[in-house]
Amino acid sequence: MRAELDCYPCFMRQALDAARMAAADERLQHRILQRVAALIAAFHEDAGPIEMGREIHAIVRELTGNADPYRAAKAASNQQALALYPALRRYVHDAADPLRAAAALAAAGNVIDYGPNPRFDLPLAIKEALAADFGGDDLPLFRDLLASNRQLLYIADNAGEIVFDRLLLEQLRERGIAVTFVVRGGPVLNDATVDDARAVGITKLAEVISSEDRSPGLLLQHAGAVVRERFDRASLILAKGQGNYESLSEERAPLFFLLKAKCPVIARRLGVAVGATVLRAAAGFPPLEQRTPSAGAR
Amino acid sequence: MRAELDCYPCFMRQALDAARMAAADERLQHRILQRVAALIAAFHEDAGPIEMGREIHAIVRELTGNADPYRAAKAASNQQALALYPALRRYVHDAADPLRAAAALAAAGNVIDYGPNPRFDLPLAIKEALAADFGGDDLPLFRDLLASNRQLLYIADNAGEIVFDRLLLEQLRERGIAVTFVVRGGPVLNDATVDDARAVGITKLAEVISSEDRSPGLLLQHAGAVVRERFDRASLILAKGQGNYESLSEERAPLFFLLKAKCPVIARRLGVAVGATVLRAAAGFPPLEQRTPSAGAR
Repeated sequence: MRAELDCYPCFMRQALDAARMAAADERLQHRILQRVAALIAAFHEDAGPIEMGREIHAIVRELTGNADPYRAAKAASNQQALALYPALRRYVHDAADPLRAAAALAAAGNVIDYGPNPRFDLPLAIKEALAADFGGDDLPLFRDLLASNRQLLYIADNAGEIVFDRLLLEQLRERGIAVTFVVRGGPVLNDATVDDARAVGITKLAEVISSEDRSPGLLLQHAGAVVRERFDRASLILAKGQGNYESLSEERAPLFFLLKAKCPVIARRLGVAVGATVLRAAAGFPPLEQRTPSAGAR
Repeated sequence: MRAELDCYPCFMRQALDAARMAAADERLQHRILQRVAALIAAFHEDAGPIEMGREIHAIVRELTGNADPYRAAKAASNQQALALYPALRRYVHDAADPLRAAAALAAAGNVIDYGPNPRFDLPLAIKEALAADFGGDDLPLFRDLLASNRQLLYIADNAGEIVFDRLLLEQLRERGIAVTFVVRGGPVLNDATVDDARAVGITKLAEVISSEDRSPGLLLQHAGAVVRERFDRASLILAKGQGNYESLSEERAPLFFLLKAKCPVIARRLGVAVGATVLRAAAGFPPLEQRTPSAGAR
């Protein structure tokens, strides 16, 4: 998606958050903000927020010399989520509709995002996601497609959140679906990398591949050939989180978004309230008659 | 005061609000944000938020050709406040401590500010200001100084708010104090001008003079000679609102600030919660032994 003008103040705020996370002193924070402002001054009006995020975090890394400002925050998120995992797994196991419970929890986990709101409340997000009418969205369509697919490309978002993704991965495995789990090509914001996937046990459940790019969303034009090819061939794709929605919302692909809408711009685009958890087929989802045979052929 | 780094995202947000208020189309809004971003990229780290506000609103006027984007909003604020005025005047009249009631209401009126938060709630602000322990601040010192002064320089902030100022002006007049009321030199944000002072009846109660500058705060280095001279000679000054606090907080002068702290940066500097109403002597207030004789001599 194109960045909306409401994103511009947020770019500055995210740059400041990232500069502070990288422990830059005041003067360096000021230089980072000036560099980001210069970037905004030259930013093409059709460019997207993830392109800007990619540049912002590259500037922060370059000026601070800190290659992974969110390293400690990511490790803490993984640990916090892993501590909750046994209870959440039992919750899913005992649920009347385990797939729905796992999807709702995976969406709730998307609150662990240092981009839109670094002061998130994970227990509250879990409570809300389980209380919300999650199935009212595109879960029935997703469920149907799971029945006719043996493979799924799962595009991950954040550290910590991927523990919640694991609950859903387990449900997919129970249904005989092989998952390829796509993580970022290196540390950017608090997004999950191969190291995070390994730390929370996902490498044992799924094939994990890297985007080979450090954008806080999957930008296909910057991603490696392996991911691009998997994306083009996939019969079913699940993209987690706001960042992947921002970078992939206009793709024509058999693609679902599973996320928590954390800012007014994204909530407005999805037609939901800020804070809502959403499972939504992409607008460019191929029509069913085109989709089913092609899915079968893959 | 110097702009804090937390002000930078807010500069972009205020520029976007102002562009929309000026009815710029999307493309023009984008151009305005790019110009403001270029300004931020070159902004000196010691410059203040009001210097930036001055530039932002000049850019919006220049690019949209709209000389007074907040004209309708200001007229509506004046009318809204005038409709409340008779009841508020009775409230002050009947109060056990009319000066305190009028000061609390004048601070509450500072919520009518399209800078920090254009979605303000005036009735709530009035309710909160009257409930809060307003006298716990520097009201006793202000009251003492009113007893030994015959003149006061009152630096106004916003349209609508000045109706609330009128309540305090009336209290000052009852105490035999002649007020000179300083307004902006021309439309900028929703700040009060001579036209606004006339529209709400203040020209009949006080001498009204213009800053001869279009900053959303009183920047003495840009103000006209008349205001600068009055400021230097004044034995007692009351500066209303966040904008005047931002531009005058470091002045060494017999100066009080009366405002509602509407953003985290200002609230932190004042050591209060966001939303608090404050009457506070300037940090650079001359010590009492220097002040009293000089005040008497003026």
